[in-house]
Amino acid sequence: MATKDMGAAEFSKVKVNCGRLMQSLHEVCEFGTGERWGSAPTETGMSRLALSDSDKQARDWFVHTTEQLGCRVTVDSMGNIFAVRPGRSGHNAPATFTGSHLDTQPTGGRYDGILGIHAGVEMLRVLQDLDIQTEYPVGVVNWTNEEGARFPKSMMSSGVWAGDIPEEDAHNLQEVGGGSATVKSELQRIGYLGTVPASHKAMPMAAHFELHIEQGPILEGEQKKIGVVTGVQAYKWFTLDIKGRDAHTGTTPFEARADALLLAARMIVHAQHLAASKGALASTGILNTFPGSTNTVPGHVRFSLDIRAPLDTTVDELEATLRQDFEVLARGEATAYASCPPHQGLPLSVSWQTDTVSPATRFHPNCIAAVRDAAHSVLSPLSSSPTDLVRDITSGAGHDSVYASRHCPTSMIFVSCRDGISHNPLEYCSPEDCSLGAEVLCQAILRYDQLRSTAAV
Amino acid sequence: MATKDMGAAEFSKVKVNCGRLMQSLHEVCEFGTGERWGSAPTETGMSRLALSDSDKQARDWFVHTTEQLGCRVTVDSMGNIFAVRPGRSGHNAPATFTGSHLDTQPTGGRYDGILGIHAGVEMLRVLQDLDIQTEYPVGVVNWTNEEGARFPKSMMSSGVWAGDIPEEDAHNLQEVGGGSATVKSELQRIGYLGTVPASHKAMPMAAHFELHIEQGPILEGEQKKIGVVTGVQAYKWFTLDIKGRDAHTGTTPFEARADALLLAARMIVHAQHLAASKGALASTGILNTFPGSTNTVPGHVRFSLDIRAPLDTTVDELEATLRQDFEVLARGEATAYASCPPHQGLPLSVSWQTDTVSPATRFHPNCIAAVRDAAHSVLSPLSSSPTDLVRDITSGAGHDSVYASRHCPTSMIFVSCRDGISHNPLEYCSPEDCSLGAEVLCQAILRYDQLRSTAAV
Repeated sequence: MATKDMGAAEFSKVKVNCGRLMQSLHEVCEFGTGERWGSAPTETGMSRLALSDSDKQARDWFVHTTEQLGCRVTVDSMGNIFAVRPGRSGHNAPATFTGSHLDTQPTGGRYDGILGIHAGVEMLRVLQDLDIQTEYPVGVVNWTNEEGARFPKSMMSSGVWAGDIPEEDAHNLQEVGGGSATVKSELQRIGYLGTVPASHKAMPMAAHFELHIEQGPILEGEQKKIGVVTGVQAYKWFTLDIKGRDAHTGTTPFEARADALLLAARMIVHAQHLAASKGALASTGILNTFPGSTNTVPGHVRFSLDIRAPLDTTVDELEATLRQDFEVLARGEATAYASCPPHQGLPLSVSWQTDTVSPATRFHPNCIAAVRDAAHSVLSPLSSSPTDLVRDITSGAGHDSVYASRHCPTSMIFVSCRDGISHNPLEYCSPEDCSLGAEVLCQAILRYDQLRSTAAV
Repeated sequence: MATKDMGAAEFSKVKVNCGRLMQSLHEVCEFGTGERWGSAPTETGMSRLALSDSDKQARDWFVHTTEQLGCRVTVDSMGNIFAVRPGRSGHNAPATFTGSHLDTQPTGGRYDGILGIHAGVEMLRVLQDLDIQTEYPVGVVNWTNEEGARFPKSMMSSGVWAGDIPEEDAHNLQEVGGGSATVKSELQRIGYLGTVPASHKAMPMAAHFELHIEQGPILEGEQKKIGVVTGVQAYKWFTLDIKGRDAHTGTTPFEARADALLLAARMIVHAQHLAASKGALASTGILNTFPGSTNTVPGHVRFSLDIRAPLDTTVDELEATLRQDFEVLARGEATAYASCPPHQGLPLSVSWQTDTVSPATRFHPNCIAAVRDAAHSVLSPLSSSPTDLVRDITSGAGHDSVYASRHCPTSMIFVSCRDGISHNPLEYCSPEDCSLGAEVLCQAILRYDQLRSTAAV
């Protein structure tokens, strides 16, 4: 069967093998449940940090499996792995890709990123089962260090591919937590430092689709099965350093203190109140106190700040206000939007470092249409009004699709996850929803291939 | 010269050699400026963590020096080192001790604890210089791990000596920061696990004096030279665990979060406001976030809480109110004493662990009188009204003298430190003030010996 000849009847035959998908998902998730980082193990969670031994195991599985399924595998200089299945024609044309990531948070779940890769592999199996010949090559890409957990830059290697993050910066990133490993040293160690440059020029993509759990509560709350992702909200990541003065906790009156932790606490409370008032998000995930002793007032605190909103202007305004307000708080005064009273004490200093700037992203109408059409087709056997089970959605999280979209048409497919929980061992997506998502992905890729072959997009 | 024959004229001859004291202080401070822990090195600071290699160097110096000065040295099972100079009679009677500690905070100064030990050694030198024979033995004791920085229990080994901390608990204490060393393993490693039981029964003391920097701004602010310490304020140390839920920072609306760090921040702000309103202190020196990733809302935060006040009842009331209020804050509500507005989100749990309880301490009138008389004697050549340069003072910090005072008459001598700064590399006490303090110490010990020999206290 050739995609260019497929009509509605043929598309409806494109079915995912749910049991096979779930088996693949859970077998490979064994790579990453053994090692833990900063938290106690759980039965269901994952800790597959980028470029760790368990990441290598999962990569080896990916390379082996896609080669068995007839793909040609390319590893680039960031360890991104591109598995490409040849098309009927257009051998030299770029592939239509689906991609996601195999790495996880230190106490992550089994679906974030992982589902997208396994759904891509399942797609290759379905194509083989049904002996479908795509017109153009199709591929699956595993992007390195999407999470930015071990090496603190999220969507790192799709960012290098897109030319937005210098490869040298990424290679030199050091692991958090005081270790000496860098991205490059770990790529070398696990054997995934490829020779092809990590670049959209060396490895162009005709399109990029990505299946992902929503990681939020919207689809579940509205009882939708599929989210057609039309874009991604803007976000910025910062590291803040608060400098005060170490002092004895028993002998230093409040008015003689420059307590960096008290100030950080006021900033964290203030940032969240201010963000909420603007329909934005603000979060601190990492905070370290120095010198770190019960009876020493910390003279230095470093913390992360993650701010997000659907519009770039909202993020920019929030950042600007916080920069002003943090100076006010550092002087011990109250801010205009009073989330905390003023405090006694000496003035402190605040410095900001911008780690990541990810502007709001709009996905491509052709890809969005392919996902929407695929979702309606997949859901029509389940409901007399399949459109009721589908909604357009903006992603709250960043994904590799953000960088992909800068150099090729892109869209994403969301499926719901229980209670909206993600980055947590309790993360869960039902086998039925995993399967539906994979089926929408498969059909969207085929529909896009058909579009390419008929309309020369 | 025998102490029992000394009058005002003889006491006035008891002079400290300032140059020798400062040389000793600064030479030995070389043991501990090389190694750092959690912070960058500075030129003036110290990092001599308890039972580290540099602590061993300083201990070796102490043993060697006091033996050279005619002392008999005993090391007990907590590594406390007692150096005793024989008296004219009363060979079997307990010594009149001065004591303090050679360990420091991770980014400590050169005077906290250290001055007290070196002043004790200087006292031994002065006794030798002047060929003074005390009636009873006098001694200098170096207490192990007063700071509680590396092994998180302050005044640990005087506490074991006093019978208030079980030796086994102290021996099994693990170092903070994830290392595997225990107090006992480190005592063994550096060769300071003595065979004499750490107990006031095995090593009784007739009295305990301690010279220490004030570590606060009072003496300096009032231009006093000597603080006669009449007691120590009460304090309690706690470790709090806040449990919420790990969640993705980009996809989880505030109302669906259980953000352990946001709650901890509100608690820290609230604790300090509430403490200030009651004339007490509250401080957090250590805070850790788990899992510790920029784009994961922390589901678990652990932090230290140190609360202090001159009266036990104030500390108890503050603790009781905080226990109630933290439950209120954990439900997302505002407290009656509104230091922070309520916040959106899911409820969290709070658990408290009590690490240290140190009730308020009243020192002994005989020792207080010895210090006061010595101070007036030492200062009379400097001022026509030496009493104006002396004041009674309550210690804000805990000291080994707290535990000592439970089994023998005790007092302390404070000298001022610049800007009240302590637990900080900038800690500074002028050579003149170090010397004055050492001279008061020396005279106080001799006066107490005289009191023992004449009044049989």
